[in-house]
Amino acid sequence: MPTFALGPNQYGKAETRIVRVVRGPGGDELTDLNVSVALRGDLAASHLTGDNSGVLTTDTQKNTVYAFAREHGIADIETFAARLAEHFVGGQPSIHEARVTVEQYPWLPVDGAHTFRRDGGEVRTATVHHGPYGTRTVSGVTGLVLLKTTDSEFHGYVKDRYTTLPETRDRILATSVNATWRHGGAADSATARQALLDAFADTYSLALQQTLFAMGSRVLERCPDVVEVKLSLPNKHHFLVDLAPFGLDNPNEVYYAADRPYGLIEGTVRRDGVAIPEEVVWSF
Amino acid sequence: MPTFALGPNQYGKAETRIVRVVRGPGGDELTDLNVSVALRGDLAASHLTGDNSGVLTTDTQKNTVYAFAREHGIADIETFAARLAEHFVGGQPSIHEARVTVEQYPWLPVDGAHTFRRDGGEVRTATVHHGPYGTRTVSGVTGLVLLKTTDSEFHGYVKDRYTTLPETRDRILATSVNATWRHGGAADSATARQALLDAFADTYSLALQQTLFAMGSRVLERCPDVVEVKLSLPNKHHFLVDLAPFGLDNPNEVYYAADRPYGLIEGTVRRDGVAIPEEVVWSF
Amino acid sequence: MPTFALGPNQYGKAETRIVRVVRGPGGDELTDLNVSVALRGDLAASHLTGDNSGVLTTDTQKNTVYAFAREHGIADIETFAARLAEHFVGGQPSIHEARVTVEQYPWLPVDGAHTFRRDGGEVRTATVHHGPYGTRTVSGVTGLVLLKTTDSEFHGYVKDRYTTLPETRDRILATSVNATWRHGGAADSATARQALLDAFADTYSLALQQTLFAMGSRVLERCPDVVEVKLSLPNKHHFLVDLAPFGLDNPNEVYYAADRPYGLIEGTVRRDGVAIPEEVVWSF
Amino acid sequence: MPTFALGPNQYGKAETRIVRVVRGPGGDELTDLNVSVALRGDLAASHLTGDNSGVLTTDTQKNTVYAFAREHGIADIETFAARLAEHFVGGQPSIHEARVTVEQYPWLPVDGAHTFRRDGGEVRTATVHHGPYGTRTVSGVTGLVLLKTTDSEFHGYVKDRYTTLPETRDRILATSVNATWRHGGAADSATARQALLDAFADTYSLALQQTLFAMGSRVLERCPDVVEVKLSLPNKHHFLVDLAPFGLDNPNEVYYAADRPYGLIEGTVRRDGVAIPEEVVWSF
Repeated sequence: MPTFALGPNQYGKAETRIVRVVRGPGGDELTDLNVSVALRGDLAASHLTGDNSGVLTTDTQKNTVYAFAREHGIADIETFAARLAEHFVGGQPSIHEARVTVEQYPWLPVDGAHTFRRDGGEVRTATVHHGPYGTRTVSGVTGLVLLKTTDSEFHGYVKDRYTTLPETRDRILATSVNATWRHGGAADSATARQALLDAFADTYSLALQQTLFAMGSRVLERCPDVVEVKLSLPNKHHFLVDLAPFGLDNPNEVYYAADRPYGLIEGTVRRDGVAIPEEVVWSF
Repeated sequence: MPTFALGPNQYGKAETRIVRVVRGPGGDELTDLNVSVALRGDLAASHLTGDNSGVLTTDTQKNTVYAFAREHGIADIETFAARLAEHFVGGQPSIHEARVTVEQYPWLPVDGAHTFRRDGGEVRTATVHHGPYGTRTVSGVTGLVLLKTTDSEFHGYVKDRYTTLPETRDRILATSVNATWRHGGAADSATARQALLDAFADTYSLALQQTLFAMGSRVLERCPDVVEVKLSLPNKHHFLVDLAPFGLDNPNEVYYAADRPYGLIEGTVRRDGVAIPEEVVWSF
Repeated sequence: MPTFALGPNQYGKAETRIVRVVRGPGGDELTDLNVSVALRGDLAASHLTGDNSGVLTTDTQKNTVYAFAREHGIADIETFAARLAEHFVGGQPSIHEARVTVEQYPWLPVDGAHTFRRDGGEVRTATVHHGPYGTRTVSGVTGLVLLKTTDSEFHGYVKDRYTTLPETRDRILATSVNATWRHGGAADSATARQALLDAFADTYSLALQQTLFAMGSRVLERCPDVVEVKLSLPNKHHFLVDLAPFGLDNPNEVYYAADRPYGLIEGTVRRDGVAIPEEVVWSF
Repeated sequence: MPTFALGPNQYGKAETRIVRVVRGPGGDELTDLNVSVALRGDLAASHLTGDNSGVLTTDTQKNTVYAFAREHGIADIETFAARLAEHFVGGQPSIHEARVTVEQYPWLPVDGAHTFRRDGGEVRTATVHHGPYGTRTVSGVTGLVLLKTTDSEFHGYVKDRYTTLPETRDRILATSVNATWRHGGAADSATARQALLDAFADTYSLALQQTLFAMGSRVLERCPDVVEVKLSLPNKHHFLVDLAPFGLDNPNEVYYAADRPYGLIEGTVRRDGVAIPEEVVWSF
């Protein structure tokens, strides 16, 4: 039997759902998270022979998430993720790198005391890598759905044999923002999120690519600690319905919101002329 | 070959996605709907022989939704649904009854001009039946996720051979409200929704059933035109994590948010001693 | 404060996920279910005052599902559901009616011993009501996706002001079958399912309504114990792509599979001239 | 205003749904795909100034997918993806690299003629990169859900302060296989898929990691053209239910199938001692 080599590998507990309540006289605080852990290290024996002596079980990882919430609290998701990542690497010789990803679901206070309403849709995210390179933090937001009713054109593009799209000087522009920003640990997420909103709103758009670059640039302008912004923007098409067969005009009023296919515009905006530590990306 | 009888049947176009923009100097208005139509009538021939002479196609129904948005606007989803339902019944002798269901996705203004942000999660609903009985309207809300950190007990229940649940004097109570309210056409949805929120928040709960009844009653109190409220409330369990194995206490602070199974509490609250027209329900 | 009346209500544990393995020398058997229980009865006190003395907790219901799988096995989902429903009603004076719904996920043997592969998509269902009227059983299948590449026409329908759909003598017909069949307890589900498949395949279709009636009739023909079949058939539209702008013809070869909107055709087929006990439907 | 740099970026049409029918006397053939295109190149102007003169629109990409299905047919998804990728790069000077991802939904013949049934769950995948490095192909399968009722142990792992998991000598092992295999263009997908199944079935497992390595190795053994296999295996936990409170034993018979959290085991297996061209990965 030929033998083969074990390449990059990782394992961990995904999607541990944790809700923490801090009770206080001025009203409770509610933190609602989904935590995923992935670990890398000296784990070949588990793959090759089923020897698990280097394996910190995913069940233990889950327990650690819950215990750390009680022992250390959850100041913010970046800090919580970093603490966990450092613990897993520092606590076990067989574990050399950890990636902790946290999704935070926002809630709104209802009565200022004990009742909350889930603020649906938008999710705050953080991914922390910890390893020989130190601690690297990427924060973000996903599911932030934005729409502009006008101030968006699209023309001047390549026409080839397969092109039928008419040029337009006025269209709806809509997207669901998936953004991450890489930073030194001190980025203010509310500021970054507001920058995304503002740039989307005030950029007169000739292409979603242009809006993307404006959004990334705005985050870099307002958040000095951010070195790079990644944006993944589905172009959620809204097609003007042809009402002429019914004897009606349609002056940019009635649209069909399509599901699929959709455009997908993705790009990176970076702070220029600054030494930026290389990003840690696990290719799975 | 034996012959069989055609029983209740209906057909229509489901999930027509329509976005309407009303443009104005003080900022645009955005209406984002998902419209489903179902029709009943003299449709046996289509089933028995494929004779479609009584069939108003689902494609035509879709076209009508778009055209009506332009011809008549969308004042509110109840009015829009009723207009469509009346049109389908009034316009074709073969169509005797129509049910139009509308989901409305809320958007928040971002800049007061042209930019909007999707207010995720919660959806406004309306279902209108039109037929020989006239027009019947049910309004509602779905996906309104609420949580109370305390003021919820659960005890005094039946114990049988299979009971292991310990009684509790303090638990998290969380649900995703699916509510509908039946009314004469003049119910204010914002008032009904606020009543649901307020009752959830200020009811000290001994059972989710008790909270359900309080929520329905509050809507009836504040909305004189509403005759009946239906509530379907999943009990989204949050279990206190046992941290004792790690030498930690857990004073109602760290919870595991479970996916499945979940309780499902459903009930109806009705205005008493009032003649209420019978509800139209299509059992599919 | 006005008082209001409690109308129809029910509660129970939804979506208890249970997997049962029967181990044997000739290979294991695997049963994979999702069980939902709903109970009705003398439950007003829980709603009005939070007095839970009549409440069999949803947690106990879950425990009972697991215990019954061990005590009684799972011969088939109809028997398992009926046993549970009868237990809940028989075991507690406050519980007068029970509805137990079971979804069964099919698995295929891989090695005839211990390994199985999930047969995705299609799900077998059963709903049992037990109450003063005895035990009523509805079996079914959902998620059975079928497509015919030809032998489907659509024409002769109403044309009104909003009609633009061209008639067709050859189209793709595709649907995802959601079917239930009401029976006396002895219906063979495999026979019913095969009847649905055969009728879909060999019916030359002038309307999806016609196919629906043929499918229901075929089940009644082959399953003497079945008294009624309900079918909910989304018309999953496949549109021929216009390739003429690219100098290409498209002889019914290349289609766009649309997501939304879709037609939804629903109907009932009944055994004629037979006394049929009334169906139990809980309107939530 | 500071200026920032545009980093890696790409754009394209995602999720174009195409169904192709090849009609023949011996029965039709049905191909059901979801095609996503992403392009890279000289696209800075679109981001910086909204100058779209280098942009091949995503609408044109969609048209090309449909037209190519007619012009060239779809022999297999790898060939179809490669032809598209090469066209986009070869046809436009501004486009330097293309990635085409295809999901194929399997259908089973019902009558050997015109009727098909969707084989749910499992999806075949292919991703082709084309650029200055030539054409690189990765094939795969996703959603292949497998379960073993026995022959799986888990013990000998690290115990730290947060470990409570008991060791086990017999457990259910279940996963949903997401696998990709990198190859020179001639890999037989059916062989690779069967290798995954066989290795899952006949590996006595001391860790899901061990099963993963065995699965990857088996693909490499049987598919000489494959140089690397990547596996992402969620550990879908099945917990033995404690029936002791009800006076019942549970000899590995009744399990609770949990949703979240789950383990996630990911790894790569490579052909050793062979020069392997570097993989193309776009980090978005």
